[in-house]
Amino acid sequence: MVDQNAVYAAAGDPTPLPSLRWDEPPEGPVLVLLDQTRLPGEETELVCTDVPALVEAVRTLAVRGAPLLGLAGAYGVALAAVRGYDVEEAAGLLAGARPTAVNLGYGVRRALAAYRKVAGGGGGPEEAGAAALAEARELHRQDAEASARMAEHGAVLLRELLPGGGYRLLTHCNTGRLVSGGEGTALAVVRKVHRAGELRRLWVDETRPLLQGSRLTAWEAARSGMAYTLLSDNAAGSLFSAGEVDAVLVGADRIAADGSVANKVGSYPLAVLARYHHVPFIVVAPSTTVDPETPDGASIEVEQRPGHEVTEFVPTQVPGGAREAGMGIPLAPLGTQAYNPAFDVTPPELVTAIVTEHGVVSPVTGDAIGDLCSRSRQVTIS
Amino acid sequence: MVDQNAVYAAAGDPTPLPSLRWDEPPEGPVLVLLDQTRLPGEETELVCTDVPALVEAVRTLAVRGAPLLGLAGAYGVALAAVRGYDVEEAAGLLAGARPTAVNLGYGVRRALAAYRKVAGGGGGPEEAGAAALAEARELHRQDAEASARMAEHGAVLLRELLPGGGYRLLTHCNTGRLVSGGEGTALAVVRKVHRAGELRRLWVDETRPLLQGSRLTAWEAARSGMAYTLLSDNAAGSLFSAGEVDAVLVGADRIAADGSVANKVGSYPLAVLARYHHVPFIVVAPSTTVDPETPDGASIEVEQRPGHEVTEFVPTQVPGGAREAGMGIPLAPLGTQAYNPAFDVTPPELVTAIVTEHGVVSPVTGDAIGDLCSRSRQVTIS
Repeated sequence: MVDQNAVYAAAGDPTPLPSLRWDEPPEGPVLVLLDQTRLPGEETELVCTDVPALVEAVRTLAVRGAPLLGLAGAYGVALAAVRGYDVEEAAGLLAGARPTAVNLGYGVRRALAAYRKVAGGGGGPEEAGAAALAEARELHRQDAEASARMAEHGAVLLRELLPGGGYRLLTHCNTGRLVSGGEGTALAVVRKVHRAGELRRLWVDETRPLLQGSRLTAWEAARSGMAYTLLSDNAAGSLFSAGEVDAVLVGADRIAADGSVANKVGSYPLAVLARYHHVPFIVVAPSTTVDPETPDGASIEVEQRPGHEVTEFVPTQVPGGAREAGMGIPLAPLGTQAYNPAFDVTPPELVTAIVTEHGVVSPVTGDAIGDLCSRSRQVTIS
Repeated sequence: MVDQNAVYAAAGDPTPLPSLRWDEPPEGPVLVLLDQTRLPGEETELVCTDVPALVEAVRTLAVRGAPLLGLAGAYGVALAAVRGYDVEEAAGLLAGARPTAVNLGYGVRRALAAYRKVAGGGGGPEEAGAAALAEARELHRQDAEASARMAEHGAVLLRELLPGGGYRLLTHCNTGRLVSGGEGTALAVVRKVHRAGELRRLWVDETRPLLQGSRLTAWEAARSGMAYTLLSDNAAGSLFSAGEVDAVLVGADRIAADGSVANKVGSYPLAVLARYHHVPFIVVAPSTTVDPETPDGASIEVEQRPGHEVTEFVPTQVPGGAREAGMGIPLAPLGTQAYNPAFDVTPPELVTAIVTEHGVVSPVTGDAIGDLCSRSRQVTIS
């Protein structure tokens, strides 16, 4: 069993509440989430006793980030199973909660397969539920291990690309402990070089409209004692102009078979700026983020989120966050429409490298992604 | 005398409160400003009876935008003169209120020169004050006329660059009636093509951190019945990728002798994206924005604004806006530092054209800017 608090303690940065944890009776079985919509002001937990509550948490971004969504999906299936709900229906609800998040579907499928295997082999519901939960825990363990490996590979890559250390790294959105069963993806690399004394400054994009950079990445950076500076997303251009960025590190929500990267909106403009200024643009993501069924960038379905996330400001203190239009402080005239894509797509030619738990893909080509997937399958099979 | 309400009425879009107006006795002499920090929720006026009040309005962005700041500077000198304050001291305070805003200094100098000419020639304080006020009013008239000419030249340029009409134009910050004695700069061009039935959509960047796009440009677009859509600044990349932007139109706060353009932070990333996607990037600004004393982009002093504009959210309903750290709703952990440049600088090679009241400069070179300045001087002399 994964003891996530132990992971935090080992990193010398104790965090009282893990991003996600499974509680057994007498409190559980329940899935307990750190409500990320309340950070950085409050550290509060959401207790999910059924899948509809978990789906709501996914939709409101109380739980978010590619790897953590995978865990939420797997534990969600386990929750339905051990509590005796309709597991197939729960899996469908969970998988559809955020269409672009491929890890969510992956986690759901893994726990569901474990459940079906036992149930289909004549096992009782209790036994099948235990199998789903064991699978979720295994995914959790693998995620923490993948995170550690990505950090290692990413740190080696930075040393190769930028000899001399003293890195000034720019990141977007949140890709740290809050998205992961371990230390995360891009931010895990940043933590690794920070612990090695090689981080000069972390530039944190605030990441409009939901401000994951201000609220979450800055919170993680502050807690771990990094030298960090926050900026409006559109101020990144000035940093590049001034030669203040040595590399951009971001995560990924989905990687197509050709190496196109879907990530939080605002990643693509950073990739274009990085190319224009000859700065490496590095994507850090577990190999499970690659979706071989999606041939290229044009095939990635980008979800449009509600316009009121842009036209209204909802203080994080409001319980439940920005759920409905009209609940926030208006920023624009009433009736204003907003274009609010959750993600953008960066084509492979703008990505310097993709760092995975199996190593670094660079240059990013369809063949290299194909090799990665077969390595990934070998690891899974072995 | 300029009757600004008449200008609004002539455009078929009555606005109850002009951006700036001079009131004579019995109410005055005072300078009355529309408080732009309260829009779009409230339309309220700030009455300035002395220059320190006006300097405060400039600093808090209650009055903002390059041409309007020129008018504020000129009327401010006139206000000090007709009310019997120390005119030289007032001029110094005003000119230093925002170092990057070249028009502010220009307006101050024009009214001050008119004042000094009369005072130095043996005229009494009343006569000298009247001369300063007449000069401010002349600048106001010229500004409205320049705005109409920029709109005309810009519309012709769009027709040349994009035959067929139905433009989808992206703009940043606010460059309309709220910045001008007339219809503005970039937004004046948009209004012109909108009235001609040639605007398909105006994409409005929200323009963090102070949201001039959401609060001001969306308000002007809504009032004039344009088809407009608001977006987070970092979502512009997705629009370019999708081929949804035909041209970018922005204003300028200062143009160097080599054609480098200082404008609201976020303009430079749009210029890089526009170049990457082969989309025209057009700067619309009066010739007074050119500063021949600034040789190039590297010589432009970019002011850093307070970090709490990024780390805190101040509802526009709070009287006075974001004056002090700690008055807003925290968006980031306490103690977070922010990088908050007011402007960025776009090099001339990324600017497709600069549209001025004297015509279009394209390609943008030091020689072409020099020609523009000499045309500008001829017009002033004639």
